[in-house]
Amino acid sequence: MAGAIVSPTPLLKDELDIVIPTIRNLDFLEMWRPFFQPYHLIIVQDGDPSKTIKVPEGFDYELYNRNDINRILGPKASCISFKDSACRCFGYMVSKKKYIYTIDDDCFVAKDPSGKDINALEQHIKNLLSPSTPFFFNTLYDPYTPGADFVRGYPFSLREGVPTAVSHGLWLNIPDYDAPTQLVKPLERNTRYVDAVMTIPKGTLFPMCGMNLAFDRELIGPAMYFGLMGDGQPIGRYDDMWAGWCTKVICDHLGLGVKTGLPYIYHSKASNPFVNLKKEYNGIFWQEECIPFFQNVTLPKDSTTVQKCYLELANQVRDKLGKVDGYFVKLADAMVTWIEAWEELNSPPSAAIPNGKAN
Amino acid sequence: MAGAIVSPTPLLKDELDIVIPTIRNLDFLEMWRPFFQPYHLIIVQDGDPSKTIKVPEGFDYELYNRNDINRILGPKASCISFKDSACRCFGYMVSKKKYIYTIDDDCFVAKDPSGKDINALEQHIKNLLSPSTPFFFNTLYDPYTPGADFVRGYPFSLREGVPTAVSHGLWLNIPDYDAPTQLVKPLERNTRYVDAVMTIPKGTLFPMCGMNLAFDRELIGPAMYFGLMGDGQPIGRYDDMWAGWCTKVICDHLGLGVKTGLPYIYHSKASNPFVNLKKEYNGIFWQEECIPFFQNVTLPKDSTTVQKCYLELANQVRDKLGKVDGYFVKLADAMVTWIEAWEELNSPPSAAIPNGKAN
Repeated sequence: MAGAIVSPTPLLKDELDIVIPTIRNLDFLEMWRPFFQPYHLIIVQDGDPSKTIKVPEGFDYELYNRNDINRILGPKASCISFKDSACRCFGYMVSKKKYIYTIDDDCFVAKDPSGKDINALEQHIKNLLSPSTPFFFNTLYDPYTPGADFVRGYPFSLREGVPTAVSHGLWLNIPDYDAPTQLVKPLERNTRYVDAVMTIPKGTLFPMCGMNLAFDRELIGPAMYFGLMGDGQPIGRYDDMWAGWCTKVICDHLGLGVKTGLPYIYHSKASNPFVNLKKEYNGIFWQEECIPFFQNVTLPKDSTTVQKCYLELANQVRDKLGKVDGYFVKLADAMVTWIEAWEELNSPPSAAIPNGKAN
Repeated sequence: MAGAIVSPTPLLKDELDIVIPTIRNLDFLEMWRPFFQPYHLIIVQDGDPSKTIKVPEGFDYELYNRNDINRILGPKASCISFKDSACRCFGYMVSKKKYIYTIDDDCFVAKDPSGKDINALEQHIKNLLSPSTPFFFNTLYDPYTPGADFVRGYPFSLREGVPTAVSHGLWLNIPDYDAPTQLVKPLERNTRYVDAVMTIPKGTLFPMCGMNLAFDRELIGPAMYFGLMGDGQPIGRYDDMWAGWCTKVICDHLGLGVKTGLPYIYHSKASNPFVNLKKEYNGIFWQEECIPFFQNVTLPKDSTTVQKCYLELANQVRDKLGKVDGYFVKLADAMVTWIEAWEELNSPPSAAIPNGKAN
């Protein structure tokens, strides 16, 4: 691997798609141009399909609006959220690449403490291409980073690590707080640059934020369903959380790794806490039930693929969380539909076309 | 005297002892004087008791050599290692304070990225006085740090956290590597200042290093036994690892927290990798059995105190690890002796003398 920063042949150029849910901000792509232009973009347009998104010259992209989603998925389009950035997961499904990077349009290029622009995508790729260490904690963080290693007392049998499925990046400036915390601390800004990447240990759940997230689609793609949010649903702003809980449980079961930490992006604007509170209040309540559920989920040994794990999880969601609220029965059904749609659009791995276009 | 001290009323001045295993280096205390002088030191002299350690003027200290240990513990002194820095745990036992900070004499004051001297003790105290969050990962690290909080998706029911029992600090310059890694990377230095403190999740073990370590003696003291190392033993350099595995398992059982990260000290010199290899080779081999053992240990519900947990752990070590090597039978016996000695020197909490002297 070349490894050089902003290299003339960017890492994984033909193996990674950037998925963006709508672009409301014209500056967004201009700012990212040096880093994103070599890659293919998949833009999933949220809301009114009659509006047009103007993509600046020079970018290689495909754009899907609601009409496209309905046309491509038919009745199965019901599993894709409407008027919510959760719709982005449609992009994961139509991509044919091995890796996905997804980012929100209010996230800009951050600077490291030396003042240098951070190439977020490059750091994500490094995270995904090096192993994870979910079985034992390394106190000097990522042991595969130059200048670091496994510390004394780290078992040698675990030093090869496991394949990394997810790289969860962080945010400087506006932290990813829930509405109550936003309301209580409206002026809080994240200025702490923590120079670390670490594996989230096996058996530990985390709040996965979709703002700045990369994953290996071949390893974990079908678990990256962002649920039913937004229009017609009793909940919003839990799309990435839901995907994170499902993904982590399945990664733990399949022996895959999830990393968090670097890279940072600059999160430019806080969303409206009052609007957020309305979207979140059910989620805030339900997460108290969901998290113990996911902490205690066990998947059977014969769930050997992500798809099998996900369908099993859908069953358990229906059985156990269905008692909490009827929404979870609907969500469980949508999880099944999502997998059906995924399989329809994605040939079995053996027949996969490496750089194919969306059907 | 007070003029040299950073804070006019240092945190926990009458509630914390600093335990140091031997001081071979006269610069050590001079360098730490501004930070350590307000506190009481317990020096546990390793090796030949006829040698004298010269403690610079102005420090309040008590010093124990092997003769003192033998006199105070009688036959139970067998549980305290000889010719190994593992002897430091005798200091934990004779202390009557609530908190312990232990540091090696080749660890100096580190500088933060702005060039300011790091008050390691102050950071440890902050870590110990704020809660831990072992049940769910917070992606912005310690949520109790100024400028940080719990992120979106963190369950509100877990935001109070649990009491922190252990604060594990890190090392700039010479990293804490095992002998094989030292041999392979003799020139590697840790220059990465990671500005974070985090809780090690429940169910996850970590390699606890005794170089720069603080703990709440009342919460976890009896688990901080540094085992049988050095003279007459087939193993060295696993004293802190052993204590870390036992401590973590007991903290998880009792609902206590373990933090790692800040503060850094400057680790000045690498120990000889050839000597280390000789000390470590059994440990490197045995840890492959010990870690799965500790990962699978379950403690019964009626183990409601650290002492009860520790004695139960000793039984399981004898039964299960005794099969790996006879050393673990001896170690299990020593674990029991350690608890007997601890209870002899430490009256039940209700009758504890807050600032008592060693018996």
